[in-house]
Amino acid sequence: MEKKQAFQIKGAFAIYKNGELFLGELQYALLKALISEGSINAAARKCGISYQQAWTLTDRMNRISPVPVLIKKKGGKDGGGCRVGGYGKLLVELYEGKKEEFSQSLSDLNDGLEGCLI
Amino acid sequence: MEKKQAFQIKGAFAIYKNGELFLGELQYALLKALISEGSINAAARKCGISYQQAWTLTDRMNRISPVPVLIKKKGGKDGGGCRVGGYGKLLVELYEGKKEEFSQSLSDLNDGLEGCLI
Repeated sequence: MEKKQAFQIKGAFAIYKNGELFLGELQYALLKALISEGSINAAARKCGISYQQAWTLTDRMNRISPVPVLIKKKGGKDGGGCRVGGYGKLLVELYEGKKEEFSQSLSDLNDGLEGCLI
Repeated sequence: MEKKQAFQIKGAFAIYKNGELFLGELQYALLKALISEGSINAAARKCGISYQQAWTLTDRMNRISPVPVLIKKKGGKDGGGCRVGGYGKLLVELYEGKKEEFSQSLSDLNDGLEGCLI
């Protein structure tokens, strides 16, 4: 049973590569949307960001990543699609696992907080 | 032995009260500086923020807190000092404990990360 706390600890995390942001909540949501939607346009819409932002984010992920995360296809009847490769799918799974661990840590951190804070 | 990782998970946390930010890294640093310096002016300088910012931050903490965190004194030969009360000192200790726990969680989260990410 979870009770609504007056005091609450919240937190966030992200994966960096050589100090540069690689995979945070937005990048993760975008990758998931790219897998389910199959195009940058639809994925951007799902995440509430512009096509340009989604393009820039995926470009940066591809540049930082040791293996391309997103394979972009030019041309074709729908003006070019995209495909999240095996490494990108592995990233999504990894992030989900870490997200669950992190969420558990925050829950532990919140244990007994109320009692300490009047 | 800690090795420098190409991939690294970083994170942050803060304590909220009824959804409003109460105690994050800056508020904690400010409280610590107020205890050691004894004046808002000197504490602000130590934290690299303006006197006005420090005043606003402590005012907000006092407003949110069930017990005043900082007791401000008007007048006197140094133009008014301040004192972090018992509850404020308890907050500093509590935050330090949570910070250590959080840091351990991030370290656990980083375990095996490199192996997963090529």
